[in-house]
Amino acid sequence: MEKRVYNFSPGPAVLPLSVLKEAQEHLISLPGVGMSILEISHRSKYFKEILDEVKTNLRTLLSIPEHYAILFLQGGATQQFSLVPMNFLRGSGKSSDYVVTGSWGKKAIKVAQAEGSVNAVWNGASENFKRIPQAAELKFDPNAAYAHFTSNETIQGVQFFEEPNVGDVPLICDASSDFLCRPIAMEKYGLLYAGAQKNAGPAGVTIVIIRNDLLERIPDGIHEIFNYRELVKNDSTLNTPPVFAVYVVMLVTRWLLNHIGGLAKMEEINRRKAQVLYDAIDQSGGFYKGHAAKEDRSLMNVTWTMTNPEIEQEFIANAQGRGLYELKGHRSVGGFRASIYNAMPIEGIELLRDYMIEFQKQHG
Amino acid sequence: MEKRVYNFSPGPAVLPLSVLKEAQEHLISLPGVGMSILEISHRSKYFKEILDEVKTNLRTLLSIPEHYAILFLQGGATQQFSLVPMNFLRGSGKSSDYVVTGSWGKKAIKVAQAEGSVNAVWNGASENFKRIPQAAELKFDPNAAYAHFTSNETIQGVQFFEEPNVGDVPLICDASSDFLCRPIAMEKYGLLYAGAQKNAGPAGVTIVIIRNDLLERIPDGIHEIFNYRELVKNDSTLNTPPVFAVYVVMLVTRWLLNHIGGLAKMEEINRRKAQVLYDAIDQSGGFYKGHAAKEDRSLMNVTWTMTNPEIEQEFIANAQGRGLYELKGHRSVGGFRASIYNAMPIEGIELLRDYMIEFQKQHG
Repeated sequence: MEKRVYNFSPGPAVLPLSVLKEAQEHLISLPGVGMSILEISHRSKYFKEILDEVKTNLRTLLSIPEHYAILFLQGGATQQFSLVPMNFLRGSGKSSDYVVTGSWGKKAIKVAQAEGSVNAVWNGASENFKRIPQAAELKFDPNAAYAHFTSNETIQGVQFFEEPNVGDVPLICDASSDFLCRPIAMEKYGLLYAGAQKNAGPAGVTIVIIRNDLLERIPDGIHEIFNYRELVKNDSTLNTPPVFAVYVVMLVTRWLLNHIGGLAKMEEINRRKAQVLYDAIDQSGGFYKGHAAKEDRSLMNVTWTMTNPEIEQEFIANAQGRGLYELKGHRSVGGFRASIYNAMPIEGIELLRDYMIEFQKQHG
Repeated sequence: MEKRVYNFSPGPAVLPLSVLKEAQEHLISLPGVGMSILEISHRSKYFKEILDEVKTNLRTLLSIPEHYAILFLQGGATQQFSLVPMNFLRGSGKSSDYVVTGSWGKKAIKVAQAEGSVNAVWNGASENFKRIPQAAELKFDPNAAYAHFTSNETIQGVQFFEEPNVGDVPLICDASSDFLCRPIAMEKYGLLYAGAQKNAGPAGVTIVIIRNDLLERIPDGIHEIFNYRELVKNDSTLNTPPVFAVYVVMLVTRWLLNHIGGLAKMEEINRRKAQVLYDAIDQSGGFYKGHAAKEDRSLMNVTWTMTNPEIEQEFIANAQGRGLYELKGHRSVGGFRASIYNAMPIEGIELLRDYMIEFQKQHG
């Protein structure tokens, strides 16, 4: 097999090796079908089986109740930034609430402003998005069309560990970078969306989970392809879905069920993995400094800087010599970011931890 | 290698075996990268190289002038049905012209009506979409915002062999099902779009080729993700593009350049392939009846019926025994459809021809 590096990219990101192997094995011809997954019709029974299985697996993994629909769409979370206010803010006569805890929340609220009145219930920009707000800091409008939050901010590395309490207002979540990293209380959500390319699959498919009663609120005049009601009515096949990406998501859900053993187990593993790196930061005596407040640290994206930024470039370059890639932090935060999604093996994390300790010994 | 059937599906559709093999070979780890194509960042230099190569290859294959931009988007042609009028009809104070030659043109014009005034310059519905209009039947509005046509109608199997003459009005084309099947005069087009899943790659990416001066006509207030100007400004990476699908399109363009030898050669092969099946229909003495008018017959989708519809089901079932799949015609046309895109080998077509002759001997 070809040599693989440890890929700490924030997304598209590392996938389980067994998933890649299975996709590879059948790429020329699916068993019993005689066509590649890249060639099968989205109207075929083979694809229907894939779609049914991935939905069933997601229902099992996330305990999604029957009164929620599951969609596989295109255009990433960015397209959802538009679809959410187009479907639920436009013409509603209401305003919408956004909790802005990082770069992605900032993008989401900006797009929504084109469709109506939007309130930033809380905005961490002045604190450089280092933390998640306390419950007491959040005053939601009980008449809002919806309340939106970003469960994990990929760039800053802060994560909600409890959903904001928004009462009866539909809670809408961009869960792109922590989808499937842990169990969640699905019934708290009105709509949850996630670009697949972190924990769920390759780039090119977006999962949307939506409570059916919200579909009735969608005004007339939304183009079919942007209208959740029409998309649900057509079970993600209003037009040709991204067949291969949906198939890989199906393989990833199988891996979570059969290899990992569900999301409670996955969370346990993720906590252990994150702890290894946060310990390395905390035990460095200030050589490494975590970006996020300790209680809000992401399980998925570990962000840190150095007191001496001059040696950051050296850290990155030498890391690659060890097979540790894509560790550069986003320019808005600086320093480093290790994205350690579900599929990042503990071996990669321990190798990074050992390298951090060694690098500190050389430069500390 | 696993057994493969001949797949006559209208799309997603057959891909070149050598492309599948190359995608398979490197699916675990791209050479010199150490990550799967499913895992690489869209901001990485590897993806930049893929994007640059696929654009260069398309420019070579289609002789695309420098003042056209090439985009790789999501949402299929269906999303383009919306984006075209959102960008060019909305707020223009003009109307738009549509030539409706089949099911896809019908869908495109319906969507456009939500954005402004729309004229069906010609509509073949009353003739069951059996033909393409003559030049003399088409009276375009010289002040239209744009004129739209569907170069090949996948369901009916009719194809334009010359672009409608629309003067200075921007000509917009849905070329989904005959993209890259032959050379075209790109400078006649204002915008051409094509879902990849017929001739260019797997489902999940849409190619848009747009003349740069049209970008200036786009009104303010279009969401970034739906705004061609913003998409061009960000070179298809305004958000995460469908990396794998773009990669496969790159492999297909390489195959067209290096294995086929360009689009003139491809057209020659496609004409020869289509002729084999049309001859079988024409020489059947009426046992098989072509749906499309002879001069407008598609090189990509061969549609026909039988005088005796009762044995159609038997034709389909026995065909599968020979390894000939997905031959059922769309319900709006009935009978059969053999989609014979670029990657369908002549062997599959000859096998189908032989089967047609044999079936007629048994039932004629």
